[in-house]
Amino acid sequence: MNIYYAPPSQINNGFAELLDQEAKHISKVMRAREGDRLTIVDGQGGRYQGSILMITNDAVQVKIDKSENVPPSDPRLVLGMGIIKKRDRLEFAVEKAIELGVSEIGLFRSERTIKKNVRMDRLESIAVSAMKQSLQVWLPTITMYHTLDDFLASYTQAEWLVAHEKVEKQDHSFTDTDSDTVLLLVGPEGGFSPSEIDKLTDGGATTVSLGENRLRTETAVTAFLSQFLIQ
Amino acid sequence: MNIYYAPPSQINNGFAELLDQEAKHISKVMRAREGDRLTIVDGQGGRYQGSILMITNDAVQVKIDKSENVPPSDPRLVLGMGIIKKRDRLEFAVEKAIELGVSEIGLFRSERTIKKNVRMDRLESIAVSAMKQSLQVWLPTITMYHTLDDFLASYTQAEWLVAHEKVEKQDHSFTDTDSDTVLLLVGPEGGFSPSEIDKLTDGGATTVSLGENRLRTETAVTAFLSQFLIQ
Repeated sequence: MNIYYAPPSQINNGFAELLDQEAKHISKVMRAREGDRLTIVDGQGGRYQGSILMITNDAVQVKIDKSENVPPSDPRLVLGMGIIKKRDRLEFAVEKAIELGVSEIGLFRSERTIKKNVRMDRLESIAVSAMKQSLQVWLPTITMYHTLDDFLASYTQAEWLVAHEKVEKQDHSFTDTDSDTVLLLVGPEGGFSPSEIDKLTDGGATTVSLGENRLRTETAVTAFLSQFLIQ
Repeated sequence: MNIYYAPPSQINNGFAELLDQEAKHISKVMRAREGDRLTIVDGQGGRYQGSILMITNDAVQVKIDKSENVPPSDPRLVLGMGIIKKRDRLEFAVEKAIELGVSEIGLFRSERTIKKNVRMDRLESIAVSAMKQSLQVWLPTITMYHTLDDFLASYTQAEWLVAHEKVEKQDHSFTDTDSDTVLLLVGPEGGFSPSEIDKLTDGGATTVSLGENRLRTETAVTAFLSQFLIQ
């Protein structure tokens, strides 16, 4: 795959500079040469094509000759997820959420979360890889919040949907929305507590059932986001 | 979690025998005692409750006092998946498919699959764990087929749906079906080849788009099955 990532700060005046892992990959793994063409995404909607001007182990300079700008998703889907204890499952949830088109991910400790350190650097690296792998051009942000309340405070204007087993009336049209931002809330292992559910619905959230099966958190994340794939 | 698995052959006349890993787990990890209650599922719709009569490291005898029979899913969802090269992703796809309610899984090598040995014993073990974890009582079968054709030959009466990027007309009602068995076909990394797609559609398959994003095989599996969660 000939797609590389460079943040906008490394792309100026028709030239791009690839550093660190990207540069190492190009020089040592791909064994690219001057003149080889590649594609660069900047994580902010920009996709560029160009030719390599110069390669060292630490930096690759590219002359850009084609560029396009892809608008962000509309509506934006924001995933709010209770932290998953097992790292591989958490990383999986993040990777899948990005493939499925999430714009932002918020991780929070909820009442039922076992406290744990999270390797944010690994998650950010996974986010970059997932963006490139899925041919996307917007790099989702991944933010850790101390509490569910802190997370919700950042999205007061969004439409809130929360995955919950007990749903009084299933509104099948939850994927049709007028909002430009939709929050998809998935509780931690064990689900949201009753008081958390009350707080969410008091705040205007709609509860959404993901069917009859009991789903692990990472499975609920993918199932929830998958409802928005087909419009 | 107090749920254990014993195939029907180990359940007779009001008694159940748990062996191997199940017995070890009960005796060494749970340190259960005579009289403790537990739940047993037989993978064929049977769910039993009873009390432990006798425990050794190798076998646990249970006296059953409650039993129920859960009918199989209707329609049955059968997943046909090109083999995924990386073992952790393949195992993930199997685990997620079972949580999401699949009845049977067929793995096949298609034109674009890199040939590889598959640890079927690990997949079967994952299937048992996923069944128990998701509180289900039917144990999905996992079968390896030499070719896509061999797999399809086992399901000539089913409705065939194949996930494909290029879909002329998206029929949104593909989750409404009259068939008792629906085949969900997901190609290997790289997707199905054009000739495989032709063979499938000539055989009556409907192509279904899973949206605009490029999805890894295991993500496509979860996205596809997730469309059937909410009826």
